Amino acid sequence: MPHLGPLHRGVWAALLRQLLRPPRAVCIRAVGCHSQVAEAVLTSQVKTHQEKPNFIIKVPKGTRDLSPQQMVVREKILDKIISCFKRHGAQALDTPAFELTEMLTEKYEDSCGLMYDLKDQGGELLSLRYDLTVPFARYLAMNKLKKMKRYQVGKVWRRESPAVVQGRYREFCQCDFDIAGEFDPMIPDAECLKIVCEILSGLQLGDFFIKVNDRRLVDGMFAVCGVPESKFRTICSSMDKLDKMSWEDVKHEMVAKKGLAPEVADRVGDFVQCHGGLSLVEEMFQDPRLSQSPLALQGLGDLKLLFEYLTLFGIAEKISFDLSLARGLDYYTGVIYEAVLPPSPAQAAKETLNVGSVAAGGRYDRLVAQFDPNGHNVPCVGLSIGVERIFHLVEQKMKLSGERIRTTETQVFVATPQKNFLGERLKLIAELWDAGIKAEMLYKNNPKLLTQLHYCEKADIPLMVIIGEQEQSEGVLKLRSVASREEVTINRENLVAEIQKRLSEC
Amino acid sequence: MPHLGPLHRGVWAALLRQLLRPPRAVCIRAVGCHSQVAEAVLTSQVKTHQEKPNFIIKVPKGTRDLSPQQMVVREKILDKIISCFKRHGAQALDTPAFELTEMLTEKYEDSCGLMYDLKDQGGELLSLRYDLTVPFARYLAMNKLKKMKRYQVGKVWRRESPAVVQGRYREFCQCDFDIAGEFDPMIPDAECLKIVCEILSGLQLGDFFIKVNDRRLVDGMFAVCGVPESKFRTICSSMDKLDKMSWEDVKHEMVAKKGLAPEVADRVGDFVQCHGGLSLVEEMFQDPRLSQSPLALQGLGDLKLLFEYLTLFGIAEKISFDLSLARGLDYYTGVIYEAVLPPSPAQAAKETLNVGSVAAGGRYDRLVAQFDPNGHNVPCVGLSIGVERIFHLVEQKMKLSGERIRTTETQVFVATPQKNFLGERLKLIAELWDAGIKAEMLYKNNPKLLTQLHYCEKADIPLMVIIGEQEQSEGVLKLRSVASREEVTINRENLVAEIQKRLSEC
Repeated sequence: MPHLGPLHRGVWAALLRQLLRPPRAVCIRAVGCHSQVAEAVLTSQVKTHQEKPNFIIKVPKGTRDLSPQQMVVREKILDKIISCFKRHGAQALDTPAFELTEMLTEKYEDSCGLMYDLKDQGGELLSLRYDLTVPFARYLAMNKLKKMKRYQVGKVWRRESPAVVQGRYREFCQCDFDIAGEFDPMIPDAECLKIVCEILSGLQLGDFFIKVNDRRLVDGMFAVCGVPESKFRTICSSMDKLDKMSWEDVKHEMVAKKGLAPEVADRVGDFVQCHGGLSLVEEMFQDPRLSQSPLALQGLGDLKLLFEYLTLFGIAEKISFDLSLARGLDYYTGVIYEAVLPPSPAQAAKETLNVGSVAAGGRYDRLVAQFDPNGHNVPCVGLSIGVERIFHLVEQKMKLSGERIRTTETQVFVATPQKNFLGERLKLIAELWDAGIKAEMLYKNNPKLLTQLHYCEKADIPLMVIIGEQEQSEGVLKLRSVASREEVTINRENLVAEIQKRLSEC
Repeated sequence: MPHLGPLHRGVWAALLRQLLRPPRAVCIRAVGCHSQVAEAVLTSQVKTHQEKPNFIIKVPKGTRDLSPQQMVVREKILDKIISCFKRHGAQALDTPAFELTEMLTEKYEDSCGLMYDLKDQGGELLSLRYDLTVPFARYLAMNKLKKMKRYQVGKVWRRESPAVVQGRYREFCQCDFDIAGEFDPMIPDAECLKIVCEILSGLQLGDFFIKVNDRRLVDGMFAVCGVPESKFRTICSSMDKLDKMSWEDVKHEMVAKKGLAPEVADRVGDFVQCHGGLSLVEEMFQDPRLSQSPLALQGLGDLKLLFEYLTLFGIAEKISFDLSLARGLDYYTGVIYEAVLPPSPAQAAKETLNVGSVAAGGRYDRLVAQFDPNGHNVPCVGLSIGVERIFHLVEQKMKLSGERIRTTETQVFVATPQKNFLGERLKLIAELWDAGIKAEMLYKNNPKLLTQLHYCEKADIPLMVIIGEQEQSEGVLKLRSVASREEVTINRENLVAEIQKRLSEC
């Protein structure tokens, strides 16, 4: 297309591809995206150096890059989480990013449509993992493991509508801790809740509490309220929206969309608006309706035991027994929980800071059996920390505090005030690297001293080694503290020892 | 299907799905897989507790789980690599696992077919990343960055035929370090080679060397040999196989498959069988054929400068100038390199240990411009460490040495010799966790003391805290060293302080 002028051919091809694709494939920020593309096509013929069109070069919808600043924050958060998992004796595990599609299907209520499938390119049918729990259960069954306490940190993918402001993404990182094995009731479950408390306290995110409920109690409650068994799961998923919607709206969904009788919905409503502590558990034990359901009584019995252990752990006041908690995922069978940060008054005003649930989990006693053709089972309980939401909070907090983040760890900068010292600088810096010292220099034959000083100040590098004609002739070097601007002269051969001494002092 | 007997319905569904699918979607290990499936169907009616069929529960072809033991090895390797990257002043970056397909296409010669595409589920067309270099270039262009020294560690995916024995996978981890920006020639390039040397020495993988060449020299050499320009890339990729195939076989490919004239191939052969050090670079400078190509002379000039810097870094003896090195990826424009572990005589005998290239990289000066509609450019040079191959070597080495790997870091185990001490154990362990001490206990109401002792020995936990009736009545605890079996009595209130003292002593 030579008549199109100075615009790069590849750009034309890309623009045309964009025009030929359905609108939602390209629009993320644009309101009238077709006209924007058309405009770009038109103006690009006029403006040779137009702005790079941001609908061409972008990351996929719902994903993001993490910049070096963000990576520092991310690493700090992950370090805290992982060291807590290790404190509780967990082993590390890694599984592939994708699984055979059939390993994942039927594990997630209402969620199959949210899975990223890989294109059939000949071979197996694959999907990106939706969480780290199902791959863990697959791992246990595949290796016939009857017991394991493991953690796993990794990305998972869900094709949800991204509400990026709230810290929700289509690609996000999860940190999971799970205990698999046949044990006495509620001891591992209590440890999971202890871990959530330790992590959320350790990250200093402010006040938090953990909603707790039991799937058997939910099912028992549905039964005694008269919810038909075929509707249990779908009513569950409506109920799960109670933290985002009012009871009226949830009831409307149950009745109008899911065909529940209004009086049944009202009976459910009586229960799900209850929350409290151990005393509510005991009160529910006395409830004449729930007493009819052995399933509900089992759930209540375990919850009572759980509260006993949580009291011994000193975290009972962080726990709220909440009959509305259902958890969307289909595989839970017993205790379920979800940690929530209540918005502070200041946060409530700025809606963006309300991130909702930051950790969740529960007991899934029948998932491993789904992978074992003999139905051999391994009961499991676990938790998942939602890193993106925590990241969002910590990032906001750091922005507000104006805290400066160092994105490198460089300790020493090798500089020269004169020309023709590249060779000396290369020899010096190699000596530092070989001694394990973190060092940088400018990639210039003859950099200006001021440029080198600025680099150190900008990157917060604490020490400078300076070599010039005078130093070379005397067999010495200058060691400069960037902050205090003090300089001392040291013998060339003492370089590494002197620097190690200085670094151990700071 | 009630007449089918005790076999789980889900298993039947899975078996039927397998039977209905084309064979290559399910068979990986089986030779006659249809008959195996049929046999499984038949025998499952007879044997209720048959072995779990391994074609049903598996990970996708070319991928693997990393067990806790493997994760310990993996983490050690990654720690060494990342600390080297940080020693050289690199910042961390993370990018999504997938990119818009159009961001990746035309970046990899001959490799598009090896990309994992995501299914078009409505929305953008996406592909899993093939390396970390192209996403880095996309990041630079998208954020209009003119300079950056970054590292990135992450998985990449390639649909290659997996030869799992040699440590080749379809999902694998790469560790990349790159320097982007306009600098004086060969200084960042030399640092990249220094980094490869530091990492491979640090990992103690035995002897290694790094092949170095220059893409301009390759192109110049092709031109003076009479290779038609349209065949440069395809002849390049044949040449790249010289480390796996003999020159005769490579020549045959060039002539028979790629249509090169035999005398042209012979001229290429004269060059590509040369390798040596700086002296070979200087010899090539005198070569009357190469002197005709300004491109070749540019490459040779940079290689000479590179050798000068590598000598100052003290690593010149690790470098082999090798005219056969081409590197498959299309984006390289200047210096290219590849680190190789030569098989020791013992390894050569056991073919599985020959893992070939363990690190590679080069200069790619025009990749960023491909993402910028104005063609604004950022020259880059970088390297990539192939973790899987290194992992394979380290794992083999550890197996041979019989070294025992601890997969947890637990410091203290809380035990009791008597019944009814669960409450006390829970209180004690919470105190330890809250003090940051890594602690475990058994999830049993009344575990046997012997079981508890065995657990500690098996998991190499160094310390035990023991509480029983006598200790409780006296307000004391027993602290036992698992290795020496020595026990001391400490005051209950000194628990944390005593343990911290003990742990700081070991």
